[in-house]
Amino acid sequence: MQLLDGKKTAKAILNTIKIDVAQRAATGKKVPHLAAILVGTNGASQTYVNSKVKTCNDIGFISTLIEYEEDVSEMRLLDKIQELNEDISVDGILVQLPLPPHISEEKVIEAIAVSKDVDGFHPENMGKMIMSEDAFIPATPYGIMLLLEHNNIQTKGKHAVVLGRSHIVGRPISILLSNNSNPGNCTVTVCHSKTENLEEICKQADIIVAAIGRPEFLKAEMVKEGAVVIDVGITRLEDATKKSGYRLAGDVDFEHVAPKCAFITPVPGGVGPMTIAALMKNTYKSCVDRD
Amino acid sequence: MQLLDGKKTAKAILNTIKIDVAQRAATGKKVPHLAAILVGTNGASQTYVNSKVKTCNDIGFISTLIEYEEDVSEMRLLDKIQELNEDISVDGILVQLPLPPHISEEKVIEAIAVSKDVDGFHPENMGKMIMSEDAFIPATPYGIMLLLEHNNIQTKGKHAVVLGRSHIVGRPISILLSNNSNPGNCTVTVCHSKTENLEEICKQADIIVAAIGRPEFLKAEMVKEGAVVIDVGITRLEDATKKSGYRLAGDVDFEHVAPKCAFITPVPGGVGPMTIAALMKNTYKSCVDRD
Repeated sequence: MQLLDGKKTAKAILNTIKIDVAQRAATGKKVPHLAAILVGTNGASQTYVNSKVKTCNDIGFISTLIEYEEDVSEMRLLDKIQELNEDISVDGILVQLPLPPHISEEKVIEAIAVSKDVDGFHPENMGKMIMSEDAFIPATPYGIMLLLEHNNIQTKGKHAVVLGRSHIVGRPISILLSNNSNPGNCTVTVCHSKTENLEEICKQADIIVAAIGRPEFLKAEMVKEGAVVIDVGITRLEDATKKSGYRLAGDVDFEHVAPKCAFITPVPGGVGPMTIAALMKNTYKSCVDRD
Repeated sequence: MQLLDGKKTAKAILNTIKIDVAQRAATGKKVPHLAAILVGTNGASQTYVNSKVKTCNDIGFISTLIEYEEDVSEMRLLDKIQELNEDISVDGILVQLPLPPHISEEKVIEAIAVSKDVDGFHPENMGKMIMSEDAFIPATPYGIMLLLEHNNIQTKGKHAVVLGRSHIVGRPISILLSNNSNPGNCTVTVCHSKTENLEEICKQADIIVAAIGRPEFLKAEMVKEGAVVIDVGITRLEDATKKSGYRLAGDVDFEHVAPKCAFITPVPGGVGPMTIAALMKNTYKSCVDRD
């Protein structure tokens, strides 16, 4: 069993970007600028946004963090997005989800200029991804593809089983893995809450991507010897033995599944850091596209 | 074995639309108007466009057919699309594919207003389909979903295998069948030219959608007893015994597969008529959305 070390892979990717950014700066070119919007005081959202801003600073990007109270109006948020769309200094705009229930996530996402939608959640970017056109790929599935690529995981002709059909992870990763590309060219099965014989299907998989948000759902008896397992889940479970009061659990019963795997991602330190690296790659791409 | 009669189902759907259109006309409301653009003299393309125009006339839609020579410039085509986008009398615009190689299909499709893209090929409509938002669904996959719905085929929890990953049929039908909807909620496996063990995978399927354009590819030994088989292929094969000099073949070896099926679509008379019915439903929807 070999760990797919997302932390290490992300570091290598970010380091390459950092060098490219320094070269741009040295030749008087614009450096990438990410604008992040955070609404409210959700702990996990704050952690995610802070770590994105910190990564920007680490690799020489400019970042702008715009924070609103929980009760900000939808109109005010949409006005701010419009302003950022028109601001030529900004390359990427992200709005940390989830948003409070009085704000339409659909409206907010669709307000972001397609060419600055570095989270890749705008329907036009989603559609272009389906059609294998140039697009921003959502950060988590893009991060998984980068992780497979950088670790030379063979995917062509393999059977990949994706657990989950969310438009943020499950759906796009199922499309990317089955596209005519490398990594890609997998035979892909999408499973979800209505799937029957889930264990039987999972046991056929050469590659499993677990993205359902149910801690330790994937058990050893569901996994074939020698499989590659990618764990997208990250849930806080109460744990009195920890100083923080909680521990992080993935969708995979790591302790029992890992010994059967050829490769497996840890949680934390697997898909999480790759998501941030992918976001930075998208933002860098947006900046270069604007040259 | 029961035939999934696309001709009959399409007729029922079109008849409902016809009644609705007549009611609109009787109350002084606008009737749907489809504008179709045909470039060149490809025989199959002419047949398809003519049958769409004929259907419009049959059910009380207005239709405009715009024909160009094979050597029309991309610019002229784009100008015409812009004109149709701005023409408030037009509800739906379709450009018959394929286009000659000097014209970018991507550019042409993306020039069509999302709100008039009744073929559902614009990336924004594709993306909205992924995200289960209100969208125009591409006509062939939408027609398949209507065929399943009107014939009360149970899909929830079933294992559907889709052969083909084109963005016109394979990819969208795989998404629609696995969405949380009815029909839908299938476990879906997407297969393609790089798939290994294709026979073994097909044999597990409760529902097979064959959309690869290889005549009579799906053989009896690949199909489970009691399966539902949807044949999207339609290829002209030379046949000296026919007056036309050709016969139409689907992707399924119908003669040998049909006896094993619970339900199967014929070719012709299966998915083909449903595609036109779906296009008309999209155009009708566009007209009503504009009220």
